[in-house]
Amino acid sequence: MIRASAPGARVELICVGSELLGGKINTHQSYISLALARLGLALSRESSIPDDLEPLESAIAEAFVRADALIVCGGLGPTFDDITREAAASALVRPLVFRPELFAQIKRRFKCFRTRMPAENRRQAYLLRGATALRNDFGSAPGQMLVTRGTNMGKPRMLVLLPGPFAELAPMFERDVLPRLKRLYARGVFSRALSTHLAGISESSADERLKILTRKPLPGETFTILAGRGQVDFHAAASASSATLAAKKITRIRRLIRRAVGEHIFGEGGTTLEAAVGALLRRRKLTLAAAESCTAGFFSGRITAVPGSSDYFKGGVISYSDGLKSGLLGVLPKTIKRHGAVSAQCAREMAEGARRAAGASVGVSITGIAGPGGGTKKKPVGLVYIGLAGPGKRQHVWESRFLGSRQTVRERAAASALYRLWLMLSQR
Amino acid sequence: MIRASAPGARVELICVGSELLGGKINTHQSYISLALARLGLALSRESSIPDDLEPLESAIAEAFVRADALIVCGGLGPTFDDITREAAASALVRPLVFRPELFAQIKRRFKCFRTRMPAENRRQAYLLRGATALRNDFGSAPGQMLVTRGTNMGKPRMLVLLPGPFAELAPMFERDVLPRLKRLYARGVFSRALSTHLAGISESSADERLKILTRKPLPGETFTILAGRGQVDFHAAASASSATLAAKKITRIRRLIRRAVGEHIFGEGGTTLEAAVGALLRRRKLTLAAAESCTAGFFSGRITAVPGSSDYFKGGVISYSDGLKSGLLGVLPKTIKRHGAVSAQCAREMAEGARRAAGASVGVSITGIAGPGGGTKKKPVGLVYIGLAGPGKRQHVWESRFLGSRQTVRERAAASALYRLWLMLSQR
Repeated sequence: MIRASAPGARVELICVGSELLGGKINTHQSYISLALARLGLALSRESSIPDDLEPLESAIAEAFVRADALIVCGGLGPTFDDITREAAASALVRPLVFRPELFAQIKRRFKCFRTRMPAENRRQAYLLRGATALRNDFGSAPGQMLVTRGTNMGKPRMLVLLPGPFAELAPMFERDVLPRLKRLYARGVFSRALSTHLAGISESSADERLKILTRKPLPGETFTILAGRGQVDFHAAASASSATLAAKKITRIRRLIRRAVGEHIFGEGGTTLEAAVGALLRRRKLTLAAAESCTAGFFSGRITAVPGSSDYFKGGVISYSDGLKSGLLGVLPKTIKRHGAVSAQCAREMAEGARRAAGASVGVSITGIAGPGGGTKKKPVGLVYIGLAGPGKRQHVWESRFLGSRQTVRERAAASALYRLWLMLSQR
Repeated sequence: MIRASAPGARVELICVGSELLGGKINTHQSYISLALARLGLALSRESSIPDDLEPLESAIAEAFVRADALIVCGGLGPTFDDITREAAASALVRPLVFRPELFAQIKRRFKCFRTRMPAENRRQAYLLRGATALRNDFGSAPGQMLVTRGTNMGKPRMLVLLPGPFAELAPMFERDVLPRLKRLYARGVFSRALSTHLAGISESSADERLKILTRKPLPGETFTILAGRGQVDFHAAASASSATLAAKKITRIRRLIRRAVGEHIFGEGGTTLEAAVGALLRRRKLTLAAAESCTAGFFSGRITAVPGSSDYFKGGVISYSDGLKSGLLGVLPKTIKRHGAVSAQCAREMAEGARRAAGASVGVSITGIAGPGGGTKKKPVGLVYIGLAGPGKRQHVWESRFLGSRQTVRERAAASALYRLWLMLSQR
């Protein structure tokens, strides 16, 4: 879901590469969309085009007429199927010019890495006439930026060619392209962005509750809601004619977000649930251990995704078998016999056991039925118990039911445990 | 990377939804590309268009002229911003017709779920004149398929409208659209597809070694190489004028693949490394336990992604702290003191310890430095030891160095452990 008011400049994206039409997932589109939103700009169209001259030439020609700014990613490499330079030259009826200083740079780069430059790399020293080269610190292909004036009802028109690999594209885009887009299409426009991160709420109910903002965005406001891995991210951007006004708008937006979904906000500005949990553990000088059955490492994997998490995370047990539940975690065999391994009682003993075994101040446990098999009428697939032991004498167990595939149930169970832990840690 | 010879029919895809231009990742494009490849067809272009009537109308009109078949995904819902029906009608200058029998079906569906049908859902009962409704078993929006004849140099032209949610789109696409595409554009063409799955090899070296096939594909052959999570998937499709010829082509392709990368092939036809490992464990009646440090559950999470894995996976220990390494796995404190927790010696004792603690026949261990901090000159970030204990008296430790972010190092380390285990299990 995205809602934007008054579109402003038309920015189009063309992604070049036959692999995008052969099954490879396009991640540039998402990255560029979110980067533009920070300026209050939005993509008006994206096209994926194979590595063929004729279709790429017509796609560039058509898009360049429609758009204020056209960004083309990929096809700047040295080999025969890298045809973006030639396609752009034909589409704009503008020659490619050999630039000796660029060629010298490319040769120097190869020298640095002590490899001989293949003859084909000479092609990378050609620029569209009038274009500026964009420095590539992570590869041999320079980017290109061309700004033409006068034809587009007085508005400048911009063409950008960027290399395909993300590690080369992203730094160039941030350093050279975003500031220029801002000057050309968002001049005198002051933008502020706010990313709010929610947990313990589904995308659709967050969407529903945030309708007060998104149903009819005020001029200059853009909203995007994205969900994944048990976390909902709400991106807002506001632009105005002064920095003060933009800040005021964001303050109002933040207030409305807090009113709508306040209890689910665990952070702002690009954090994750595991980082928020880690920060709280660190601040409260607590350590953590985990006992995972059905999730088998998803929870611990997320906790340790945060650099430095070994300061507060001790580790834990993947108690997939009943033997390990008893042997390493000290779950009583009679508990398993009487209530089953998927039960509140077992979850409680697992959390205590993890805490004890690791000498940690807090223990978390997850036990459930991930499916597709193993469900019964009383204990259906998706039933999950989450246990929490500590700090001190605290003990909690929650029963949940998650719908979806085996993978989804496991991801949601791990996310839910992170959320329960965050709630407990943030409350006092 | 994709290499296809002789493009055949032009199939275009339009994905409708402002969220795709606001940061949401487009996964339909990948799914549809791979499904088409099984018929020997390829997408010639994809466009993402926001939920706005005018741009969608022109995108459909342009694409319908260029393409033999045009697939449009999304925008068939009941609300005001679902405008694909109207855009298609304007683009093709073809009226929408109310179909009472469809309306009755939609009403019946709501009755089944015991909810009142909102008035807006009536819009979903309108079809393009001449179109066939495609049954939706998982939502209220029927799909639409229109085939026109005569204008496209005698070739039939096809327009398909599909609902946006993947769970609704995929079954409809497989059941109604693929067979029709085959009849219309691949009639008399017999296709065979072969997916080969590789591990222990990088995408670029697989690409290099498979050049014998991909550099100059024979007529009717398509190749795509995709990589992720330590696994490389090589998709091949061959079409010919008879089933026997297509099968012969695939036999030749399989032989060439085996010659080029044989030792890295762990399976065919859509399997994963964890499923291949699981099948071998099951066949050899072995059980498995894991001790994970830097990967903290990534290995166990993958092993248990396979339904029924509890038959052979006992669980293990996430030994993030030295205390757990000694306490639960029995690693000697003097081993850690003398060699460090990231060492071959520690990996060996961890693997043995996991096996012993879980009573399993095979133990796997992973210990390393995921970064970004914690590296030294002697033990740099990315250094990982993988240990294997059992079956019987076998013991192995491998030292590897993985490059990339913390996440990448952890994913590659887990994948590498899976690959080592697979190699050992498949050898005897």
